[in-house]
Amino acid sequence: MAQSPYQQLEQEFRRLHAFRGATSLLRWDAAVMMPRGSADVRGEQLATLESECHALLTSPKVSRLIERAQANEAQLEDWQRATLREMRRERDHAIATPLSLVTRLAKATSVAEVRWLEAKQQDSFALFAPHLEEVVALTRDKAQVLSQALGLSPYDALIDGFSPGFLSAEIDQLFRVLSRRLPNLIREAIELQSSRRPVPIAGKVGISKQRALAIDVMRAVGFPFDRGRLDESDHPFTEGGWGDVRVTTRFDLRDPFAGLMGVLHEVGQAMYDLGLPEAWRDQPVGRDRGMALEESQSLLLEMIVGRSRPFLTWLRPLLEKHYGATGVEWEVENLYQTLIAVRRGASRMDADELTYPVHIMLRYDLEKRILEGSLPVRDLPEAWKAGLDERLGLRPANDAEGCLQDVHWAVGSFGYFPSYVLGGFIAAQLYETLRSELATFEAEIAAGRFAGLFDWLRRNVHGVGASMSAQELIKNATGKTLSAAPWLRYAEAKYLEVPET
Amino acid sequence: MAQSPYQQLEQEFRRLHAFRGATSLLRWDAAVMMPRGSADVRGEQLATLESECHALLTSPKVSRLIERAQANEAQLEDWQRATLREMRRERDHAIATPLSLVTRLAKATSVAEVRWLEAKQQDSFALFAPHLEEVVALTRDKAQVLSQALGLSPYDALIDGFSPGFLSAEIDQLFRVLSRRLPNLIREAIELQSSRRPVPIAGKVGISKQRALAIDVMRAVGFPFDRGRLDESDHPFTEGGWGDVRVTTRFDLRDPFAGLMGVLHEVGQAMYDLGLPEAWRDQPVGRDRGMALEESQSLLLEMIVGRSRPFLTWLRPLLEKHYGATGVEWEVENLYQTLIAVRRGASRMDADELTYPVHIMLRYDLEKRILEGSLPVRDLPEAWKAGLDERLGLRPANDAEGCLQDVHWAVGSFGYFPSYVLGGFIAAQLYETLRSELATFEAEIAAGRFAGLFDWLRRNVHGVGASMSAQELIKNATGKTLSAAPWLRYAEAKYLEVPET
Repeated sequence: MAQSPYQQLEQEFRRLHAFRGATSLLRWDAAVMMPRGSADVRGEQLATLESECHALLTSPKVSRLIERAQANEAQLEDWQRATLREMRRERDHAIATPLSLVTRLAKATSVAEVRWLEAKQQDSFALFAPHLEEVVALTRDKAQVLSQALGLSPYDALIDGFSPGFLSAEIDQLFRVLSRRLPNLIREAIELQSSRRPVPIAGKVGISKQRALAIDVMRAVGFPFDRGRLDESDHPFTEGGWGDVRVTTRFDLRDPFAGLMGVLHEVGQAMYDLGLPEAWRDQPVGRDRGMALEESQSLLLEMIVGRSRPFLTWLRPLLEKHYGATGVEWEVENLYQTLIAVRRGASRMDADELTYPVHIMLRYDLEKRILEGSLPVRDLPEAWKAGLDERLGLRPANDAEGCLQDVHWAVGSFGYFPSYVLGGFIAAQLYETLRSELATFEAEIAAGRFAGLFDWLRRNVHGVGASMSAQELIKNATGKTLSAAPWLRYAEAKYLEVPET
Repeated sequence: MAQSPYQQLEQEFRRLHAFRGATSLLRWDAAVMMPRGSADVRGEQLATLESECHALLTSPKVSRLIERAQANEAQLEDWQRATLREMRRERDHAIATPLSLVTRLAKATSVAEVRWLEAKQQDSFALFAPHLEEVVALTRDKAQVLSQALGLSPYDALIDGFSPGFLSAEIDQLFRVLSRRLPNLIREAIELQSSRRPVPIAGKVGISKQRALAIDVMRAVGFPFDRGRLDESDHPFTEGGWGDVRVTTRFDLRDPFAGLMGVLHEVGQAMYDLGLPEAWRDQPVGRDRGMALEESQSLLLEMIVGRSRPFLTWLRPLLEKHYGATGVEWEVENLYQTLIAVRRGASRMDADELTYPVHIMLRYDLEKRILEGSLPVRDLPEAWKAGLDERLGLRPANDAEGCLQDVHWAVGSFGYFPSYVLGGFIAAQLYETLRSELATFEAEIAAGRFAGLFDWLRRNVHGVGASMSAQELIKNATGKTLSAAPWLRYAEAKYLEVPET
């Protein structure tokens, strides 16, 4: 029997899915296993697979099939219609960015990334500036063509590539609300914490002990080791997806929690990937709903669950088992205060839950100005210092600790930063609802039972895939549109808590 | 400027090369890193990449370009002409085997492989027989279509897929010569060895010590760890190629040499891959010249170099360093006698250098009869037992140790087995020449210097790539066509050596 246009499309996107799965494994391998000298060969493999994906999406055949499937849309079921919409979305993105532009961007960013690392190591912005200029120019071209194709402003068109459906107008509004309260919240939290400093945790904890603890925690959380792995890399990340998901972390001899918190962060995303709708796993509708949603799952597990008294109550015997941790500094309340300590600093990566959004808002502001041209690249270092001073009352010691600290712009990821804060907002809003629906939530976590949490998330987030927009998903799950209020309530309750004694 | 047809072909085959590199990495990962439950997902990725390669090779565009490039062949340089010939060869193979047949074979063999393992574990040939029947039927179809396309006999067409250029008539002739001498050679060697049995090496050697030794040996041999890795898997293998080559071995607590010999075997092949002509690394002419040549490089390093007194003289201090090996059983002569011990047995994998060819000749004989239909699959178990009895004077205890011991036929690798013996012949013939040209060869090996060996191999074998046929390569390197005589001379000198005392 002849296949319908829709069925033929599914066939094409199944191929796309396989190519992307292979790409993901190649990336994982490059960061975790690959010998250093093999980067060129790997680069050629990745470029070939990416251009194959691009060719598939931009082929006349796929466009023709999309048109014909749309003409018969009435005969499709809801999920089929949704995946057809996502197919179109991906096709539109691909067609708007011609392969020549994609290739030029890939080349420019791969050089810029190397130069960025050198510039950071030598604290020399001048080394990086010309390469950033080039990446910015190409990114502007990309934003321009995407803007026309998608009917969005250029910057919104870039955001759409990471967190589809979010607009800068909405983000501006959310950030305004946040900005009104956050500076004082940080000040008050620091003041409050200054009166009850935790006992420092001294000494080193061997990496193999940290790894064993992390694996115990992952098992309890429900991470399926028959369909996933934990490894180590320079920066924690998650690759793969449904059926084979791989998380990494970075253990630190002198910080017994950095590696574990990295694991929780990545496992939050991995559980999302693993909970995506199985029946649609090789179609666009079976994918995650973008970076902001992914980040929300990471922050929910790391920040809201992981840095809470119930979680630490459950964790404590495991710390004793693996770390032989018995002193007063390992008591639950002391661990909790250690893990929620607020400190102003120049580094995003070292920032805590409260100051982190400040770093993001600075980057959001700067990248918009760079792209629209009102901030020349050469003025970035000073704008960064001034911006951080204004927002956090401190200046980075140098550019290495300032505008050179992040790789994002070097690799062309403009429009990515806001998803970190959006993720926090989504996490808090989901959390508020799930706690009201799961009366025993805290008791479950304190008992190391995560099934209730993930059942709820699977029903309301993971299993939804990309069948609706992020906004619809949030509205369906929480009954409200996304706002900053739940995060602010959560942060105030956590950081301005009045000690019982 | 417009690209010539030849240049466009290079472009297409560059894509093919990248796909195959990705495929190779995915296979390596599946055997070394992948979680068990991810096999289905990986299977889909591999099938997609393979059908992409098939589509590329069978596309009208590629055939048209090949015709046009051939029409202008006079303008091409030698290596370009050679790669054009290899492009045509690959295209002919792909066109002869339609995707439907490739897919049916892939499905049948993937089921047959699982059933084979079960059948082996339960010692039940009946479990495996129907699946082998199906694989045989499909393999016959494949041999038939390839036969017509290539102008070879059906079985020769299968051999051509592994070791291009070798014909069964030539193999029959080589095996006849071998068969005339080998049974007596084995008998004489065993008799001679019975009078000087080595002191057994007792006790266990920890895996981490074995790994450390293997890495030291690999470094000395010249394996570039910045472009390759050593890992562990159920069976040793080599994946990847120029720029990123990955070898595996299997260490055995109770056998301090099995893992190391596996490493030497695989590193022999890896050095071949790494020594292929760099300028042609992404074109067909830059590939190895087939399985027989690859096996020759493995056997040269493992059997001829690794199981020799000069090598063990160099190895001994390393054994002391890593294993703390100091007793009389670790003396060079005792190690040498241990590593060249000849024993008749039912297992190919456990066979030694002398009895190994017997196992191969049995399989060669049986697979030809199975394919031509003169041996029904149901009669295989008895034919196997009778054949081994006739050739080696023993019968396997059961089918698990008999006709179920190898995976090859389950996965459709008919025509592969002879390359093991051809590899041994090639290795011995190359060795005879290189030793006559490198007067200091043994002294260099005894000093742990492998540069002379690999310089010679790079000039005469590795760097040749696929620019000429295997036969031409052998003739160029050694001045003679391939024969069994060098191997027999080598084996007699090694195994019938009269003790000095």
